[in-house]
Amino acid sequence: MPEPLRIAIAGLGTVGCGVLALLRDNAALLEQRTGRSIEVVAVSARERGRDRGMALEGLDWRDDAAALAAHPAADVVVELIGGSEGAARALSEAALANGKHLVTANKALLAHHGAGLAEAARRAGCHLGYEAAVAGGIPIVKALREGLAGNRISGVYGILNGTCNHIMTAMHDSVQSGQAREFDSVLREAQELGYAEADPSTDIDGIDAAHKLAILTSVVFGCPVDFGAVHVEGIRHVSAVDIGFAIELGYRVKLLGIARAGEDAVTQRVHPCMIRESAPIARVDGVFNAVVAEGDRIGSALFEGPGAGAGPTASAVVADLVDIASGRVMPAFPAAAEGTPRPAAKPMDRHVGAYYIRLMVVDRPGVLAGIAACLRDEQVSVEAMLQRGRDPGEVVPLVLTTHEAQEAAVVRALGAIGRLDPVMEPPRMIRIEAF
Amino acid sequence: MPEPLRIAIAGLGTVGCGVLALLRDNAALLEQRTGRSIEVVAVSARERGRDRGMALEGLDWRDDAAALAAHPAADVVVELIGGSEGAARALSEAALANGKHLVTANKALLAHHGAGLAEAARRAGCHLGYEAAVAGGIPIVKALREGLAGNRISGVYGILNGTCNHIMTAMHDSVQSGQAREFDSVLREAQELGYAEADPSTDIDGIDAAHKLAILTSVVFGCPVDFGAVHVEGIRHVSAVDIGFAIELGYRVKLLGIARAGEDAVTQRVHPCMIRESAPIARVDGVFNAVVAEGDRIGSALFEGPGAGAGPTASAVVADLVDIASGRVMPAFPAAAEGTPRPAAKPMDRHVGAYYIRLMVVDRPGVLAGIAACLRDEQVSVEAMLQRGRDPGEVVPLVLTTHEAQEAAVVRALGAIGRLDPVMEPPRMIRIEAF
Repeated sequence: MPEPLRIAIAGLGTVGCGVLALLRDNAALLEQRTGRSIEVVAVSARERGRDRGMALEGLDWRDDAAALAAHPAADVVVELIGGSEGAARALSEAALANGKHLVTANKALLAHHGAGLAEAARRAGCHLGYEAAVAGGIPIVKALREGLAGNRISGVYGILNGTCNHIMTAMHDSVQSGQAREFDSVLREAQELGYAEADPSTDIDGIDAAHKLAILTSVVFGCPVDFGAVHVEGIRHVSAVDIGFAIELGYRVKLLGIARAGEDAVTQRVHPCMIRESAPIARVDGVFNAVVAEGDRIGSALFEGPGAGAGPTASAVVADLVDIASGRVMPAFPAAAEGTPRPAAKPMDRHVGAYYIRLMVVDRPGVLAGIAACLRDEQVSVEAMLQRGRDPGEVVPLVLTTHEAQEAAVVRALGAIGRLDPVMEPPRMIRIEAF
Repeated sequence: MPEPLRIAIAGLGTVGCGVLALLRDNAALLEQRTGRSIEVVAVSARERGRDRGMALEGLDWRDDAAALAAHPAADVVVELIGGSEGAARALSEAALANGKHLVTANKALLAHHGAGLAEAARRAGCHLGYEAAVAGGIPIVKALREGLAGNRISGVYGILNGTCNHIMTAMHDSVQSGQAREFDSVLREAQELGYAEADPSTDIDGIDAAHKLAILTSVVFGCPVDFGAVHVEGIRHVSAVDIGFAIELGYRVKLLGIARAGEDAVTQRVHPCMIRESAPIARVDGVFNAVVAEGDRIGSALFEGPGAGAGPTASAVVADLVDIASGRVMPAFPAAAEGTPRPAAKPMDRHVGAYYIRLMVVDRPGVLAGIAACLRDEQVSVEAMLQRGRDPGEVVPLVLTTHEAQEAAVVRALGAIGRLDPVMEPPRMIRIEAF
């Protein structure tokens, strides 16, 4: 029997305890699958005394996570501390510098320092595993990097944040049931249910999804992780009335992360999108995550599963440990395909796509003519117009969808429209994605 | 630069040419990803003279596929001949016996001889790659075997045959549009469109799906492939009227393959199912395949993509070649978890589930009482009853759904019901699956 794989775990929150529980419950199965046992030798966490419902006897407890980086008995350090700087970063860099494999669920760390960590892992001949950092329950890193390795990938997109998808789904369902609820109310309920954090900003402002997108981009395009080049918008401004119109137009509203190889750059963006309700990803609801890969051989494939939680995240951490235990140590990110451009922060001004536009206008003759003139002046062509109900003299919503147009032109047209006398609120815009 | 990985390909039909095209088009990318070039050194096919739109110069052509098994320059034999016996089997066994890695897209071969081939590969220290044998465009073997390796899997099920799913989808759409079409007409059209073979029996009788299910069962449970233990029914008897009632009841009809670990055996079955339309797999339409894995840590995850075609199948073949080129050689099937029972041909008589039952009855008072008595006599409890329209004295459909019942009791009740005077046709039954 070969030596056990010995691991040290830093961070014993929900995920850390989930990993301990998995390694304990499925120990025999893992040993049969890898031919070795996977043994926890040391742990570190902030509060030693806390009741975690776990026996920690026999484990070498260190108050200072940094001590695990040089732990003489550990082959692998599992970093579950979180945060892009501080203890997590220091431990991760030190572990690799000491020649230990690193497994992490830390998307912020990877998004900000993935390129450097991958290079450090390469130099040390160590494995940097981060399956748990993106869509925990879906083995998406492995699927993209190995399962679709024969493909030239042109794009990858997905629902990368369960909190946002839960909120979008709840708003959609409320509109469909005739009891429309607005963002703030749904968010508050999500917080009570434990689907959103007390400080929800990282989730609802799109930052968490952007972290994951930056990682996925490097997995499929092989370019260094570049979080700074991601265009990020959250879901705070999506309103029930827009979701209602989306339904009427045959769309669903989702917060998506989208990375595409363009001619001169890989573009990365996270923002609310309208997508055809018949698109497979439109039907991924609740806290689930989903990722779609578009490849030159497969066309497209969709991977759907739980994105967070102790069990799914532990499953992903242990998948990386199984790879290491089985000797499947490989570069963190694949080599870039020849001719693949690097990510670049393409200004959204230059984005070309279709747009949903909602205006609040006074219902009186001639309003549409003025709006149409503003769009014509910017060469933005209208695909459809909707005005439900008539209420002369009152403020009513007027909805337009455009054909493909450059965002700069749409923004200029909306500026002009916003200054029209019968337009009572700043125009709202949601990008339409054709999948 | 390490030595190239040298491969010999047997079979140059659609898939074989797809593999050649992929290896040619994405050669540089594959070399960057694996650190080696992947080089085709020899090929074999039936008709040398056929125009394949491919340059075959420089490749060692062998008229006899068997010659590739001992080809001195080849590290890997790629078997794309097809069929569970004959040339495909002989080549595969000989290649492994000669210490060559084997990659195959041949589900019939794996379903019938997978256990023996896996053992031969183990003895030879060779890789047996078969990602292409199940749901080509979805890297499902890798996802299950490696990506979810930390999970104890309790069940796996999926839409494993694109032809059947295309037919079910077309029938569903026809019913929904009010232009209901029956199986025979849709099959004929599918044949004209190239979605079904001239001899469609392997697909529509569920055999192809059963081949794939038998392989998936071994991937998740680690037991030897046992095709003989799969219960197989096809879709010939699904009629438009049943699809219409399914829609009314909130179900979709799909041909599924389902493998579950029971207490004393792993059961494997392929048959038409009614599934809630809100279940993610219910919405997988057309020629797409999808697989859902249920694990103790992830809950469930769904993988969806193209199941066949030159590009997707070549993508899967090359994923296996990339594993071999990267040194990721591993056992064909994982070790069975301790305590996992082997597959066994559990008679469907002992299946417990809910049932959809359709009867064609003369519309007259008292009919339901007689039917209800037959069900009561077998302790089968009715969940819902539907009789749309009234047409006194005429034959009308009467639909029942049951609570959980043992299939033997349902079958006995249907026998008694079929003998009732006002019941004009043999009762139809479709199993309802609760996902």
